[in-house]
Amino acid sequence: MPKQNADEIFKEFKEHSISEFFRRNSQMLGYSGKVRSLTTIIHEYVTNSLDACEEADILPEIRVEIRELGENKYSVLVSDNGPGIPSKLAGKALATVLAGTKFHRYKQQRGQQGIGAAGCTLFSKITSGKSVHIAAGTSREKYECDITIDIKSNKPLIENMGELQGEVSGTAIRADFGDVKYENSDHGVYEYIKRTALSNPHITITLLAPDGKESTFPRATSELPKKAREIKPHPLGVTTNDVLEFAHRSEAKKSSQFLLETFSRMSPGKIEETKSIVKDLDLEQNPHSITWDTAEKLVSAFKQIKWMVPEMDSLSEIGEKQIEVAMKNILNPSFASVTARKPKVFRGGIPFVVEAGIAYGGNSGKPKEAPKGEGEAEMQISEGNVLRFANKVPLLFDASNCAITEAVKGMDWKRYSIANFDEEPISVFVNVSSVYVPYSGVGKQAISQEEEIIGEIKLAVQDCARSLQRHLSGIRNQNLRESRYKAIMIYVKQLSGDLAEITGAKREELEKSLKKLVEERYLLNPEGASASPAEEKAEGVEDAPSGQ
Amino acid sequence: MPKQNADEIFKEFKEHSISEFFRRNSQMLGYSGKVRSLTTIIHEYVTNSLDACEEADILPEIRVEIRELGENKYSVLVSDNGPGIPSKLAGKALATVLAGTKFHRYKQQRGQQGIGAAGCTLFSKITSGKSVHIAAGTSREKYECDITIDIKSNKPLIENMGELQGEVSGTAIRADFGDVKYENSDHGVYEYIKRTALSNPHITITLLAPDGKESTFPRATSELPKKAREIKPHPLGVTTNDVLEFAHRSEAKKSSQFLLETFSRMSPGKIEETKSIVKDLDLEQNPHSITWDTAEKLVSAFKQIKWMVPEMDSLSEIGEKQIEVAMKNILNPSFASVTARKPKVFRGGIPFVVEAGIAYGGNSGKPKEAPKGEGEAEMQISEGNVLRFANKVPLLFDASNCAITEAVKGMDWKRYSIANFDEEPISVFVNVSSVYVPYSGVGKQAISQEEEIIGEIKLAVQDCARSLQRHLSGIRNQNLRESRYKAIMIYVKQLSGDLAEITGAKREELEKSLKKLVEERYLLNPEGASASPAEEKAEGVEDAPSGQ
Repeated sequence: MPKQNADEIFKEFKEHSISEFFRRNSQMLGYSGKVRSLTTIIHEYVTNSLDACEEADILPEIRVEIRELGENKYSVLVSDNGPGIPSKLAGKALATVLAGTKFHRYKQQRGQQGIGAAGCTLFSKITSGKSVHIAAGTSREKYECDITIDIKSNKPLIENMGELQGEVSGTAIRADFGDVKYENSDHGVYEYIKRTALSNPHITITLLAPDGKESTFPRATSELPKKAREIKPHPLGVTTNDVLEFAHRSEAKKSSQFLLETFSRMSPGKIEETKSIVKDLDLEQNPHSITWDTAEKLVSAFKQIKWMVPEMDSLSEIGEKQIEVAMKNILNPSFASVTARKPKVFRGGIPFVVEAGIAYGGNSGKPKEAPKGEGEAEMQISEGNVLRFANKVPLLFDASNCAITEAVKGMDWKRYSIANFDEEPISVFVNVSSVYVPYSGVGKQAISQEEEIIGEIKLAVQDCARSLQRHLSGIRNQNLRESRYKAIMIYVKQLSGDLAEITGAKREELEKSLKKLVEERYLLNPEGASASPAEEKAEGVEDAPSGQ
Repeated sequence: MPKQNADEIFKEFKEHSISEFFRRNSQMLGYSGKVRSLTTIIHEYVTNSLDACEEADILPEIRVEIRELGENKYSVLVSDNGPGIPSKLAGKALATVLAGTKFHRYKQQRGQQGIGAAGCTLFSKITSGKSVHIAAGTSREKYECDITIDIKSNKPLIENMGELQGEVSGTAIRADFGDVKYENSDHGVYEYIKRTALSNPHITITLLAPDGKESTFPRATSELPKKAREIKPHPLGVTTNDVLEFAHRSEAKKSSQFLLETFSRMSPGKIEETKSIVKDLDLEQNPHSITWDTAEKLVSAFKQIKWMVPEMDSLSEIGEKQIEVAMKNILNPSFASVTARKPKVFRGGIPFVVEAGIAYGGNSGKPKEAPKGEGEAEMQISEGNVLRFANKVPLLFDASNCAITEAVKGMDWKRYSIANFDEEPISVFVNVSSVYVPYSGVGKQAISQEEEIIGEIKLAVQDCARSLQRHLSGIRNQNLRESRYKAIMIYVKQLSGDLAEITGAKREELEKSLKKLVEERYLLNPEGASASPAEEKAEGVEDAPSGQ
């Protein structure tokens, strides 16, 4: 057996770029399975378009065109009416993994990783060999060019830069992809766009499908959602390492100034309080000299101080009314209920807020099983009737790993008159908004199962479920009363004839009185409808409306 | 509303290092939940130790020590008897994300991403503020030093480099961590180490737990597993982009030479065949001038040619006998069955092989529910009784996303006499080995649900399950026969007395003959034991041994 020593074993030691890593592990970015890959591409481009439009206070208008080029080969065009990308940054924005404006901001945005669009460019290159084409118009310039990524160095390669003529405003990206497939399924592009419209009632989005069919989801409101503000981190939401990083990056001359400028809810009074706990904190000292030990004491002191809750205007919800309008628009349900919770924090100080809705009837419920694509393993896990969203972005994959699934599936639906959650026409809508959504993977399709987040989702969904339960009980009682009424009315005719003979009273009058009696008892007064009060109690409708 | 133009919006455009990305998203590396984080750390270090030992043909001896430093703070020491790491590479190996020897090799190894150890250094830094200490001895040098990572640049920072005295051979890494917790649970370090011993019967591994308890799993065999060989890619397992990359990196002068040197199973004959399909391929041309178009034609041509299957000695299985020994050692079952499938390929040409085992009785089955740690969301998903392994490494998390879970849970266990899979004392062991395991996340805890892999797992587990079913039917029949035998023996005494009176024969002799008759019928001849042949048939034991 030839023994190898360390130098031989390590002679092949190499460093790799993040692009090279994702080239080899593209499934981690969501590129696994042909159908999913196409949805991932649309997701990345649409997400960027929406973020850019909203940042510039523009009501988004997005157009998605997908054309079939050959077997498992498609051309994709996504255009928006946003602010455009400055030409000098186009290469980095589209062809440098981990570059962008969003990564370091403490602000609610759809994208947050700086991987999405560059991931598309990478996937386009490795499956089609082609560059991505961008045409953009900003307020200063109009240009087009071809961009691709140098995988070894994670740097952009730009060709054919040219000026654009005419009226161009916004960004249009066109790219070719192999190893993808358009399919009308639970996890396909159409469903993704439909759900995007559902969670973003202020956008107009159009899809031109490969079969030439064009679908437009027009905006349900012209009101832009409340703009999310960039906020400072809350003292309860930072780790020792965070404090140290902030301190060493700070431009403040003194530690007191550093504390005041860095953290939300910090005040001279709170600095005094902090200092009274961390005795050896020198407020006059340059923050660059703060050590791990001091930072650790600061974090520990922060936890002993009473703070105002984090600034919640960092959050941009969809809005109760907007969700209801959107659900009615798209699912056409016979019942809808929406709840927005108050903002809460997780991990001590990261603000988030949960909105939930339940639609029942109409097009609600699990989509009909779509035909299985060949080799599409992801089709085996059905999301069922849970519509998951994070920062208004639909999550279509990895359902089993997600805090939303965990919360919704863990509920005892029978208590809410839903005997079989998977089979009934019920759709549960949940949107989690946060400055930092803790995704469980780079593909951003599942929210990590943080206890505080699961708890808030449960409370929100339970609230909607109680409304649904009252609605369903009402219908059930109504149906019960109606069937009893019908049964009794059959006898009323017979009975009034018999009574007329016995009493000598007029048959018509008797029938009329009996009818009135029955109607009062069985249609207008629900309390009287049941066979016994105990039975009613058992069905749990003590809070049914009391009629008269 | 102040409109922002593109230049304002993009003014904060920045590039980030991969370290910075994982600092913010450490949950993606497996650092989510205190218990899971500690298991992830041990997993990364042990994996590296085992790979290094085996590469150097050394029977691995690993020692893991975990000491509690304070609330949720622990010190970890992992030492091995491996070849050591050369000092000039220690910084990169421990403190550069995406650097290593494994990333680019086409060879079965436990690690494959170049993230693991550097991820630990990163997590140590952000939770303890400390450097990692390494002491190593190679055949040329003995040294120790402190290493940490500069997160902004993804570069190592090395301090206190010094020579080591005495007999030192191998690598010992000591690091402190915060935000972790030692717990004896389904997902804890002890379970991880136990399963590592189960899938690596040639190693000796010792755990010193924080409570001072030391557990050693001694090796069950002194035979090193067959060494995995680095192989060339198979023509059926490459994409157009792969061919292009290989061609442009090739040092061959001619395309014919490039084909011959690059691909497994390529021969002058096969090159001729390829050329006869790709007419415009110039075999004399430098491979650097191969275009996407030509590469695409090559891949398409490869698919039309008959190839020998990939070289399967690239795979290093555990071995049927070894699995059985290990299962018996650790689970002490009353029944064990193991199946090793023949190597197969997925995605056209990537070799992989599945081994499966079933243990029944003894300590098999779902571990008793451990007490829930606070905030440990991952505890909510119980792995149940499926022991998952990839390249002999135990997978303890993200079970619901994994091809192994998908295959095992999807089986109709009732057909194999297992009425309630989750409750019975059954453990299913599955190990998937490949030169490239398609993990679904950076945390490497779940195998992506590739159809070919799921199919092979099913076949392997079904084979074991059939043996189990025969075993369980045998026991059931045995029990049935024994209870009938006992019932009849009660009457034998009575009957022999009665018969003696009637026939005048000796009571003792009659009893003896009757006993013999009954014994033959009910204990030795299973066929005769059943009330009716139809009943036997219904229980599906047509293949029971026919006794005499």
